Amino acid sequence: MQKQKLRFKTPDEVEAVFYEAFVHCDSDVMAGLWADQDVTCVHPGAAVIIKYDAIISSWMIIFDDAQGTNMQYTVINRVTTDDIAVHTTAEEMLYAGKVEALVLATNVYRKFDDGWLMIGHHGSVVGDWSVKGETLQ
Amino acid sequence: MQKQKLRFKTPDEVEAVFYEAFVHCDSDVMAGLWADQDVTCVHPGAAVIIKYDAIISSWMIIFDDAQGTNMQYTVINRVTTDDIAVHTTAEEMLYAGKVEALVLATNVYRKFDDGWLMIGHHGSVVGDWSVKGETLQ
Repeated sequence: MQKQKLRFKTPDEVEAVFYEAFVHCDSDVMAGLWADQDVTCVHPGAAVIIKYDAIISSWMIIFDDAQGTNMQYTVINRVTTDDIAVHTTAEEMLYAGKVEALVLATNVYRKFDDGWLMIGHHGSVVGDWSVKGETLQ
Repeated sequence: MQKQKLRFKTPDEVEAVFYEAFVHCDSDVMAGLWADQDVTCVHPGAAVIIKYDAIISSWMIIFDDAQGTNMQYTVINRVTTDDIAVHTTAEEMLYAGKVEALVLATNVYRKFDDGWLMIGHHGSVVGDWSVKGETLQ
């Protein structure tokens, strides 16, 4: 299942393509943006997955059940160092034009010789829409 | 509410004290191990909190309702660079000696001049206990 990796110059580029792949149910693109090792993925309510092949398989199963996902995301916080970036995002799942569910995600990116790749995704459904502490920027 | 920061030489040291504070409902210790800025905290099912004061307040509210929390944690994965560490942990909440709930957490630590501090905690309740991809080490 090893795919040719995509090349990204910034964590934001990986994130944009990650959500594009999510929306369009594109498992080939998803497979190209995850690193091979030291990866973890937690889908909402589900067990943690810690190997590349198992993570890509999990996305393929999610994508098999859907033609596409209507969602939009907002980056709430970014912490970036030379070789690791940790983003907190709010994912709004839309149905018939209305927000049906809110998922908070912690996305982790790492810089490799050929660019940035995803190494972590932790999504969880939350019931409260607001950002506590200050107004969402 | 700004507290004197504790000093930690490694991410594992912060994590051990974080869970000690959690178990013993010790908000003073909790306040001493979080960094001041670029911090995020997601309690299971709740809104994301993005400021130090609001994060410590949230832990105080959790601790006010409890005398102590019977739990144990297992580190499932660690990614460590010079200045950021991302850990995935399984938190087993115990009641009357039995596991009552499983929370998966993504914990993020950052190295500052005086040592490592916590900058991120994202906990979510999951229904599946196993680690997918390989046996939990």
